[in-house]
Amino acid sequence: MSSIHDVANRAGVSTSTVSNVLNGRNDRMKSETLARVEAAIRELKYRPNTSARQLKTGHTPLLGVLVPSMANPMYGFIAREIETLAQERHGFRIMIGNTYRDRDKEARFFDDLMAHGVRGVIIISSLIDEQHFERAGERGLVMVSYDRRATPGVASVIDHVSVDSFESARLATEHLIAQGHKHIAYVTPSGRTMSRNEKINGFLHAARVGGVEATAQVVEGLPVDEYGDSMMSELGRMQAGLLAKAKQRPTGVVGVNDILAFGLMAGFRDAGLSVPRDVSVVGIDNVFLSGLMNPAMTSVRVPVPEMAQVMVERVMSRLVDADIPTGEFMFQPTLVMRDSVAPPPRPSRRGSR
Amino acid sequence: MSSIHDVANRAGVSTSTVSNVLNGRNDRMKSETLARVEAAIRELKYRPNTSARQLKTGHTPLLGVLVPSMANPMYGFIAREIETLAQERHGFRIMIGNTYRDRDKEARFFDDLMAHGVRGVIIISSLIDEQHFERAGERGLVMVSYDRRATPGVASVIDHVSVDSFESARLATEHLIAQGHKHIAYVTPSGRTMSRNEKINGFLHAARVGGVEATAQVVEGLPVDEYGDSMMSELGRMQAGLLAKAKQRPTGVVGVNDILAFGLMAGFRDAGLSVPRDVSVVGIDNVFLSGLMNPAMTSVRVPVPEMAQVMVERVMSRLVDADIPTGEFMFQPTLVMRDSVAPPPRPSRRGSR
Repeated sequence: MSSIHDVANRAGVSTSTVSNVLNGRNDRMKSETLARVEAAIRELKYRPNTSARQLKTGHTPLLGVLVPSMANPMYGFIAREIETLAQERHGFRIMIGNTYRDRDKEARFFDDLMAHGVRGVIIISSLIDEQHFERAGERGLVMVSYDRRATPGVASVIDHVSVDSFESARLATEHLIAQGHKHIAYVTPSGRTMSRNEKINGFLHAARVGGVEATAQVVEGLPVDEYGDSMMSELGRMQAGLLAKAKQRPTGVVGVNDILAFGLMAGFRDAGLSVPRDVSVVGIDNVFLSGLMNPAMTSVRVPVPEMAQVMVERVMSRLVDADIPTGEFMFQPTLVMRDSVAPPPRPSRRGSR
Repeated sequence: MSSIHDVANRAGVSTSTVSNVLNGRNDRMKSETLARVEAAIRELKYRPNTSARQLKTGHTPLLGVLVPSMANPMYGFIAREIETLAQERHGFRIMIGNTYRDRDKEARFFDDLMAHGVRGVIIISSLIDEQHFERAGERGLVMVSYDRRATPGVASVIDHVSVDSFESARLATEHLIAQGHKHIAYVTPSGRTMSRNEKINGFLHAARVGGVEATAQVVEGLPVDEYGDSMMSELGRMQAGLLAKAKQRPTGVVGVNDILAFGLMAGFRDAGLSVPRDVSVVGIDNVFLSGLMNPAMTSVRVPVPEMAQVMVERVMSRLVDADIPTGEFMFQPTLVMRDSVAPPPRPSRRGSR
């Protein structure tokens, strides 16, 4: 079994550099160094010494994972990455709860985690208000939150690991504008989360910079009791039906996430429109299904494996050493171009419809 | 809070009938009675008394759930249904492990379940050999297995809850033949599981009955290290590419599951073929994404919520009373027709390609 020294030797770095990588403290590290350490971890199949950690912490080797719904392929993907890392690197199993973004369900899940002796939890929720998380932190839970930013200037007991959601929506929107779209829309469910607000801002910012602010619209769907899977796509489908009939139909649409965007594509099809000839669609998340759509859907990649690694290592480190200060870890999204975006139809053609 | 008596009163049945429904013993029950009891459970939001059960069992209120990969939308869906029922009806949380159909990973997961005091586990694996499950049963684990049949005539410590996989593939194949297809193919990964064997048999049976046996082919893909998600669809995509170039190209293809069938549709598209004009495709599972495909994909529905209910109630009952004999619970699939199937292209047109 490899040790942290073996990894350090192989990568030609110090053990503290390896430790920094394992704990996501790599923001000021050369990307070449980071790549070398990660390769060494992989090649040596390095697993931090779990039993030593358990001796130190005395905690039950279980990690809590809170998701809105495992049936959403994005959350299933994240949960799988977390489980595999926690298990293979630390010998921790995961206790998972589907909490449907419901504050009461989330609070009950925390109670049960405490009752089971679980002290570390990764939270995928994004509710605007995280007071109930902060309270759980006061009771001794070590928490890492996915996809939400820390509140600037406010000390938090929670680590925040997020992707730049503003940038995700900005990239998607800028891409549409670069193709010549002047009438664009952004579709999102009405329940506001922090990342959803940031995406709306990213969309509006790109519209302003691109000079199409006057005709850019944010479409908020019904306040559905939203499970993050089939209801999400149904919402996209319904909104596409409404947009297709609108007097000033947008020629390019960004969906809050891929699952909703799949629904948008289906809904435009239902209305007799062709994607991308009549209307272009961009999703966010880049779940593996995006590439299987017809047309293959352009999307914005969220670096899930990299984020899962930092989430798992952060929660494990803070279980061992409660004095490690919490931090914010922000990842950058990238645009993945496929076939659901084209220049807008020429006005003459649109007029003749 | 409602009691079992309230449910019985509302449904106009005895409490033992309600208990039978909760435990999946409804094979000889009138479907009307079953529906009435299920409606009463729903309407009264009935939850069996968890604390009474825990007093009786003394077990930790955790259920193990073993899945090949949570990133597969079908397994994510099943796991979500199990978690919600276990939590809402019994106050049990779930400990989940992604075991990638790897026997060693499965065995390690069982060890960890025992170490955590978990005594009930729902297994979604389908490996041909279940000796390691039987051994875990001897160590005191109460197990329910999804999607595999019991071995006839062999006593098992495991409850088996499955859908009739032979019938799933038979239905899909019969539908193609009824549309006039004479050259049909069935695509599956090469790793054999019990349900995959049954599906192959169902396909061949339908081909025989339909008189197209001579031209029906079973295409086994690479022995991929198969995670049940993106690799599954990539396999379908690759096989569609090969089938499209085959001398005797099939006009109708059944995929072992929806995710592989999504790949088939994409692969035929890559090869310049149109679904369903040039080739028809049918999937199995009816995940919610099937209806979002273009064309919307015909699939065979597996009754996941109904199966999850029986799985959860069986494992909970046997945790309370170890003397309940194990059983086999088989559900029937149904064909869901959408737009990916049409009559085969006429020979003249095919010849002119």
